[in-house]
Amino acid sequence: MFIAEIISVGTELLLGEITDTNAVFLANELKARGVVLHHKNTVGDNLQRVADTIRKALERSDLVILGGGLGPTDDDLTREGIALVLGETPEVNQDLLNHLESMYTSKGRTMPQSNTKQAWLIPSAISLDNPIGTAPGWMVQKDGKIIVAMPGPPQEMKRMWKEQVLPRLDLPERALYHVTLHTSGIGESNIADLLGDLTLQNSPSVATYARKHGVDVRVAHMADSLEEARQGAAATEAIVREKLAKFIYGQDSDTLESVALKKLQERKETLAVFEAFTAGALAQKLGRHPRVKGVLSSGDHGIQVDLGLTPRTLSEEGEDSVNAAIELARGIQDRLGATYGLATVGNLETHECHVALVTDTEHKTATLNWVGTPDQLIERTSNAALMLLYRTLKGEAQ
Amino acid sequence: MFIAEIISVGTELLLGEITDTNAVFLANELKARGVVLHHKNTVGDNLQRVADTIRKALERSDLVILGGGLGPTDDDLTREGIALVLGETPEVNQDLLNHLESMYTSKGRTMPQSNTKQAWLIPSAISLDNPIGTAPGWMVQKDGKIIVAMPGPPQEMKRMWKEQVLPRLDLPERALYHVTLHTSGIGESNIADLLGDLTLQNSPSVATYARKHGVDVRVAHMADSLEEARQGAAATEAIVREKLAKFIYGQDSDTLESVALKKLQERKETLAVFEAFTAGALAQKLGRHPRVKGVLSSGDHGIQVDLGLTPRTLSEEGEDSVNAAIELARGIQDRLGATYGLATVGNLETHECHVALVTDTEHKTATLNWVGTPDQLIERTSNAALMLLYRTLKGEAQ
Repeated sequence: MFIAEIISVGTELLLGEITDTNAVFLANELKARGVVLHHKNTVGDNLQRVADTIRKALERSDLVILGGGLGPTDDDLTREGIALVLGETPEVNQDLLNHLESMYTSKGRTMPQSNTKQAWLIPSAISLDNPIGTAPGWMVQKDGKIIVAMPGPPQEMKRMWKEQVLPRLDLPERALYHVTLHTSGIGESNIADLLGDLTLQNSPSVATYARKHGVDVRVAHMADSLEEARQGAAATEAIVREKLAKFIYGQDSDTLESVALKKLQERKETLAVFEAFTAGALAQKLGRHPRVKGVLSSGDHGIQVDLGLTPRTLSEEGEDSVNAAIELARGIQDRLGATYGLATVGNLETHECHVALVTDTEHKTATLNWVGTPDQLIERTSNAALMLLYRTLKGEAQ
Repeated sequence: MFIAEIISVGTELLLGEITDTNAVFLANELKARGVVLHHKNTVGDNLQRVADTIRKALERSDLVILGGGLGPTDDDLTREGIALVLGETPEVNQDLLNHLESMYTSKGRTMPQSNTKQAWLIPSAISLDNPIGTAPGWMVQKDGKIIVAMPGPPQEMKRMWKEQVLPRLDLPERALYHVTLHTSGIGESNIADLLGDLTLQNSPSVATYARKHGVDVRVAHMADSLEEARQGAAATEAIVREKLAKFIYGQDSDTLESVALKKLQERKETLAVFEAFTAGALAQKLGRHPRVKGVLSSGDHGIQVDLGLTPRTLSEEGEDSVNAAIELARGIQDRLGATYGLATVGNLETHECHVALVTDTEHKTATLNWVGTPDQLIERTSNAALMLLYRTLKGEAQ
C-alpha cells in the first residue's frame, strides 16, 4: 500500500482566515489514483514545527506533499524545514537564479534580493517549474521516500501538480471504486443495525455519514483496475442496496429534488407547492423547473383561507394540523392547475410537522416529530415532502 | 502561552468530499481569545492513528480539541482513541443512557443498541450536553492537559463549544473587541480605495472580506479588558463608518433581510413578493415574517399573466424585462393585498436582472448586469431586491 500525507504550511491557515482548498483538491487527486491518505496536517510558519511535522510524516508515509511556505520572505520556511530534516544544506542554483532574474528583467524590474532563496536547491532535490509564479517547487526522492513541495496559491499548485508532479510519480496502478448511496427517512443508527457486520469489513468498506439531506452510505473497494475494484465491491453493494431499498433514493450526484423532478418530467405531469412552514426551502429546490407551476410561501391566515384552508380546520385543528396541510395542498393544486399539490405545515414549539401530497382524487401525508433547531426542522420537513413526492411519482405505496 | 491543537476525525475528510469548516470556526474562536494554535490535524477512522495523533498532540499542546467520530457506529472511534491514550476503560454512564433512551421513547421509538456507546464515559471525563443531537461531548482534564471531544455536525459542535466548553475553559484574560460592518452595493477594491491606509495598521486592525451578501469590514482591537479594547478601536471605527455610511446597512448578526423586516414592522406595513428569477431565495429570507403576506415563485407564463403580466409586455419586451418586474410586483401586491409588492426577473444568458418595488402610487427599480454563475446572479439579485426594500423603508432616495 502506497501511503501519502499532506502538510499545509502557513500561519494564516491556523488563524481561520483561509479555508484550505488545496488539501481538498489533493485528497481528491490521490483518491482518484488509489493512493491512501492517512493524515492531513496544518502547521504554522515556524522552522522547528515544520521540521517536526515533516519528520513524523516521513516515519509513517511514503509520499509527503507540502503546500505553501515557498515564498521569498523570512516566514516562508518549507525549504529550510526539508533541508533540516534531511541534513542537507540549500545552495543557490545558478540556472534557477538566472530564470528568476529574467522573469523580473523581462518586466523591466529588478529582482528583490529576498527572492534569491526561491533559487535554492538541496543536493537530493530537483526543481519543479512554475510558469505562473516565482516559486519553483521541489521534489526529493531519498531512502525510498518522496517529498514534494509546491507553492500555496491554488492555481500554481494545481498546475504544478498536474504538469510536474504527476508525470514523475510512479503511482501504483491501484484503482478505487466507490459509490455513495443517499437515503432518506432513516437514522444513522438504524442503518447501522440493518447493515450489521458489513461496516466492520475493511475492503470493500461500508461507511455511513449523517448529512443534512439524510444518511449517506459509501461502499468502496480498491483493486488493480477500476473494473476489478467494481467487481470486488459488487456483492457488498448489492447487499447494502437490498437492505436499504426502501430508503435509498439515489447515488453520488443525485439529490432528492433531482430524482423527484426527473420523475415528474418523465410522467409529463405538473406540481404546485404551498409552504406554510418551510418558507422557500422547496421553492429553492423546485421553483425553477418548468414542470413546477409555482411555489407559494405564506403564513398569513387570510391568504391561506382564501386558498382553501377551511375556517373549521383553522379554528378546531389549527394552522399546523394534518388537515390544514391537505387543504392547502388541495388549494394550491386547484389554484395553479397542477397534477399534484404539495404542502408543508409545522410548529416550531411542538416540533410536529406534516406534509401532504394531493391529486384530484386522493391524498397522502407524512408526519415528523423530532426535536431540533428551526433550521433542522425545516430541512427535515422539506426532505420529507420531497421523499413523499418522489415515492408517489415512482409508484410506490407510502 | 496557552497552546491549542485541533484534530478532525473522519475518513470522509481525507477523501476530499467535505471541507472542514469546523476547524476554521474553531481557529477563529481560539484566535479571538488569544489562544495560540500551532497544529491542525486530520486523521481517518482508524483507532491506532487516532490514538497516535492524540498522543502527539498531548506532547506539544495544552488543549486538544477533537471534532467528529462521536457517532454510534463502529467507525466512530474518538472515544476509544482518548481512552486508549489515557489508559482508561470506557463504561456506560447510567444517567447518559437514561437520557439517550428517553430521547427515543419520548418520540415513541426504541433506542437502537448501537447508540449505547454514546453513553460511554471514562473516569477522567465529564460529558458535555448536546441538546440537538444524540452524541454528548467529552471533556477531560488530566496531568495539566485538557482534551475536548465534540460531535462533527457543525450546528452541534458550535453550540456545544459556546454553551459547554467555553464556560469551562479558564482562558487567558486578553480581550478582543471586534465589530463587523456589512455593506451592500460596493465592491471590495472600491472599499479599499475609500479606506486608504486604514487597512495597513496593525491594531486596531481593519480588514475587508468579500462575502456572498456583500463586502464586510471588520474592525478589531485587543487589550486587557473589553472596555479598553472598545475604546482603543473607537476612533478607527468612527472613520470607517463615516467613509462607508452610504453602503453600510448593519453590523455583526444583522442581515439585509433582518434590517428590512425590522423597518417593515416599525412602519406596520405589509409586503408581497413574486420571484420569477430568484426562486425561493427571498421566500427563505422573508417568508416566515408575519408582515409578509406571501412569496410566490413561478416561471410559468400562464400564472404570471393571470397575476398581471400584460401579454404586450411579455411578447414585446420579454418575461425578463424591467416592465415585467414592475407588472409582477404590482400583480402580487394587488392579489395579496399588501402595502408593497416586490418582484425579481432575470436572464441567466444575458446576465441582466431587474428588481421592482411598487406601492399603490409609485414604483422603483434596480438593474444588475454582471457576469457570474447562476447561484451568484440569484444571490446578487435577491440582495439588490432587499437593499431596494430597505432603503425605501428607511425613507432614503434611491
